[in-house]
Amino acid sequence: MKPRNLINFCRLCGHAVEHRIPDDGDTHIRAVCPSCHTIHYLNPLNVVGTIPVWQDKVLLCKRNIEPRLGKWTLPAGFMELDETTAEGAARETWEEAGIRVDMGALFSIISVPRVGQVHLFYLAQMHSPEVNPGPETQEAQLYAENEIPWEELAFHTTRVTLERFFADRKQGQWALHDERLD
Amino acid sequence: MKPRNLINFCRLCGHAVEHRIPDDGDTHIRAVCPSCHTIHYLNPLNVVGTIPVWQDKVLLCKRNIEPRLGKWTLPAGFMELDETTAEGAARETWEEAGIRVDMGALFSIISVPRVGQVHLFYLAQMHSPEVNPGPETQEAQLYAENEIPWEELAFHTTRVTLERFFADRKQGQWALHDERLD
Ligand SMILES: [Zn+2]
Ligand SMILES: [Zn+2]
Repeated sequence: MKPRNLINFCRLCGHAVEHRIPDDGDTHIRAVCPSCHTIHYLNPLNVVGTIPVWQDKVLLCKRNIEPRLGKWTLPAGFMELDETTAEGAARETWEEAGIRVDMGALFSIISVPRVGQVHLFYLAQMHSPEVNPGPETQEAQLYAENEIPWEELAFHTTRVTLERFFADRKQGQWALHDERLD
Repeated sequence: MKPRNLINFCRLCGHAVEHRIPDDGDTHIRAVCPSCHTIHYLNPLNVVGTIPVWQDKVLLCKRNIEPRLGKWTLPAGFMELDETTAEGAARETWEEAGIRVDMGALFSIISVPRVGQVHLFYLAQMHSPEVNPGPETQEAQLYAENEIPWEELAFHTTRVTLERFFADRKQGQWALHDERLD
């Protein structure tokens, strides 16, 4: 994978950029174009997804793409420009698991500064147990709490979100989980 | 302001990009580099801020920068790579109003697809009524509900967040407000 956070050239005029603190009072080093004077910012990306629930089970997807090919994850992916966080979560759920869901509340918002990402997961009710995985998913499977493949999960944010989900369900009360993962 | 969403050249190798749907199963038009084969994605940016409260009043900042110079806003700005959403909100509050706050819960998450942004505001308790506005702020002032300059607010997301804040306060119950603004 190419690094998302590398800027060598100005994307507007094609000139090689300088890496320095801009003169406008900024405190961060940015890629600054000496030709057209554009300052290029790098900002965190949102990854949006769902916790699809059918009866007492949660749907996980086995990844068919890198990174973490073959590992299990909640359906999620990068938010696009033309959608809301919830719309993006529903879209990713459709693309990866082939299911429509009734979207519930935002359940977790987990910042991961190490990779410059924010992961947002929504509660979601499946309409039926049928799934129809897309090309990015090897298989999609419903798991009860005691069946979750904890050692085979793709991402820490998936693990934390599932842990919070089962803990909240036990308590019978859903909270928003706003956390940092390093 | 230069458009944030324009890509003419590959930021890695400097070659002119093509705008087309990539061959990897993608459904969106992307900037694709014919030389180094990098696909350049454009994704929504997070704007993070607070609703700083002192007694029955809310702190607003009069903008000293474009866009909306001279209009009033809650302290907020673009999230940086090296921080969480809450840390970014606290940083922006410090930079724009010169105040430290006790951060509360995430209160609003408002997607604005028209500009490719997600605005997130946190409840925040001020330690004192003293403010010390930074260079991006002309002045910072505490407003009671009936004093809010509704016609002079800088952004729709500020207005919606303040409306929800006063409505929830009246009800004595804080909810998370997850909305779309067009
Ligand atoms: Zn340039
Ligand atoms: Zn290239």
